[in-house]
Amino acid sequence: MRAIEWVGGKVRLIDQTKLPLKSVFLELGDYREMVAAIKEMRIRGAPALGVAAAYAAVLGAQKVEAVSQEEFLAQLEPILREITSSRPTAVNISWAVNRMRRTAEGCPNVREMGEALLAEAKRIQRQDEEANRALGLLGARLIQDKASVLTHCNTGALATGGYGTALGVIRAASEGGKINRVYMTETRPFLQGSRLTAWELVEEGIPATLITDSMAGHFLKKGGIDCVIVGADRVVANGDVANKIGTYTIAVLAKENRVPFYVAAPISTVDLSISLGEQIPIEERSKTEVTHFMGVQVAPEGIEVENPAFDVTPHRYVSAIITEKGVVREPYDMGLRSLMDKSNDG
Amino acid sequence: MRAIEWVGGKVRLIDQTKLPLKSVFLELGDYREMVAAIKEMRIRGAPALGVAAAYAAVLGAQKVEAVSQEEFLAQLEPILREITSSRPTAVNISWAVNRMRRTAEGCPNVREMGEALLAEAKRIQRQDEEANRALGLLGARLIQDKASVLTHCNTGALATGGYGTALGVIRAASEGGKINRVYMTETRPFLQGSRLTAWELVEEGIPATLITDSMAGHFLKKGGIDCVIVGADRVVANGDVANKIGTYTIAVLAKENRVPFYVAAPISTVDLSISLGEQIPIEERSKTEVTHFMGVQVAPEGIEVENPAFDVTPHRYVSAIITEKGVVREPYDMGLRSLMDKSNDG
Repeated sequence: MRAIEWVGGKVRLIDQTKLPLKSVFLELGDYREMVAAIKEMRIRGAPALGVAAAYAAVLGAQKVEAVSQEEFLAQLEPILREITSSRPTAVNISWAVNRMRRTAEGCPNVREMGEALLAEAKRIQRQDEEANRALGLLGARLIQDKASVLTHCNTGALATGGYGTALGVIRAASEGGKINRVYMTETRPFLQGSRLTAWELVEEGIPATLITDSMAGHFLKKGGIDCVIVGADRVVANGDVANKIGTYTIAVLAKENRVPFYVAAPISTVDLSISLGEQIPIEERSKTEVTHFMGVQVAPEGIEVENPAFDVTPHRYVSAIITEKGVVREPYDMGLRSLMDKSNDG
Repeated sequence: MRAIEWVGGKVRLIDQTKLPLKSVFLELGDYREMVAAIKEMRIRGAPALGVAAAYAAVLGAQKVEAVSQEEFLAQLEPILREITSSRPTAVNISWAVNRMRRTAEGCPNVREMGEALLAEAKRIQRQDEEANRALGLLGARLIQDKASVLTHCNTGALATGGYGTALGVIRAASEGGKINRVYMTETRPFLQGSRLTAWELVEEGIPATLITDSMAGHFLKKGGIDCVIVGADRVVANGDVANKIGTYTIAVLAKENRVPFYVAAPISTVDLSISLGEQIPIEERSKTEVTHFMGVQVAPEGIEVENPAFDVTPHRYVSAIITEKGVVREPYDMGLRSLMDKSNDG
């Protein structure tokens, strides 16, 4: 199963706002439709957003009418900016857009541009899936036998180019016979846990229990959860991690109850240009995500709402960050930098 | 506004499963309907459950046909047991039932029994409202000027005989001009925060912001929340507190971020017969509360669910327990015992 694919000159998405009750596929041929789909979270998850941004750039480039590379790049630039600004927290969008820009810059022949960009977008997706599988195997080594694991949000095939980050580690550990049970929070307000992770785990046949976000502390205290593993939307130079709102809460509770807390993220999610978590832009989303469920109003008129979509977990709560190039532990600043150097060399 | 009242020989309830979109009143004349309403959470909140149990006993006594007190007590007993077992965690139910039993035992004349029981039930309600107002004033003294306060679940007029426990403290502090803003968690799965607390605060005109449970940590870390105040379903001898699921999570996050964490509860919620929090029975509720919202399915078929309705907050996370007889701090075992002695004397 893939959340996103290039099929017949268009981008094919499974509409994640409709899952798990309906599997609706969208075929988008205009980059503006892609930007709208990203904003409306029809596709979401940091690595999948990178792939979506890359395909959006391919579609955007189709709008460009230029005879020189210079002209092409000038017309492409506002489109790339529009794609980059679709969602602010996941760094994978700007990371992928930067790769697409460099590809365009490296292609002097305008007539070959479309092909070059599509090849790069497909490469981004393929490399993401490969990175997921590699970090899945590295992460699985950290999971003890017969482990019960708690995860938050959705970090599976739906959230990535394919396979999954935190859920990729769980998948790899499960393939190695190590998983007793996965606990997942429902992940309000968007319900990525109950709608998407539950769906992926039921499909895979991995024993899985759904709880509300408010139950995470109770189960961590009670015992029976051996580790927590989550994904990331941005990992910055000091090891602070932006991820789905609620992650920080679980990290504090894990530490309080001496349960290891792991972050699984491909190198594309690491952003060394930012030094501290406080500097990461946090997206504020619509209040109706909180006041309504599937279109049904639950809160009274007149109530004010805040809806930050992400929070920042300081690195002191993180036991390890699992990437496709290796597992990093404190001190994160040194570990991440040497990993990125290694990654740039390879 | 009262969640429950005795009107024209029946119990009149506002159906809390329908709020805030519909104000539906139920008039119940049979104790079995009361037990069902309690189980279905049409009325909820520890102190309100005490009042509901008392009125249920009045209705139950109407079923008894007895010529002697002995016969009356024998027939009443299974009814009282049925009421007591309706929900296990809030001690207020058994506390109120015990008061009703003692009233029946103290009334030798069977023909005066109905009147005596009704008078006692009304006294329980009146005393609860008075206790709320008293603890509200005591608690308000702990709130600093222009405070922003975080609360969880619903502890207002809807949850009590009237006025509120934690929300009573907030109400009293607001009457004293001390409240800048109330943050409330939506309180999954039953949404007491977004449905009931939001409704009460909008009605009162107190500035209030709704967040999801998963956001509590983010806002506590960010600063701007001066204290947390919650209610309780049972406070045991060592000061451990059973309260709505998610309370423990918030307590840990409050401590981690050096924010005071207060529990507001009338003496009727204190249970010295239990020494440790681990011994409190925790109710497990239906999985559809988690998999469905207002009747709409959100999680896939086949997913397993756990749904503990309460958790236990160890006393080391509690800055103070506010009762109508005084504010107790560590060491709670001594403080609570001397408070209960004082209460029995009065």
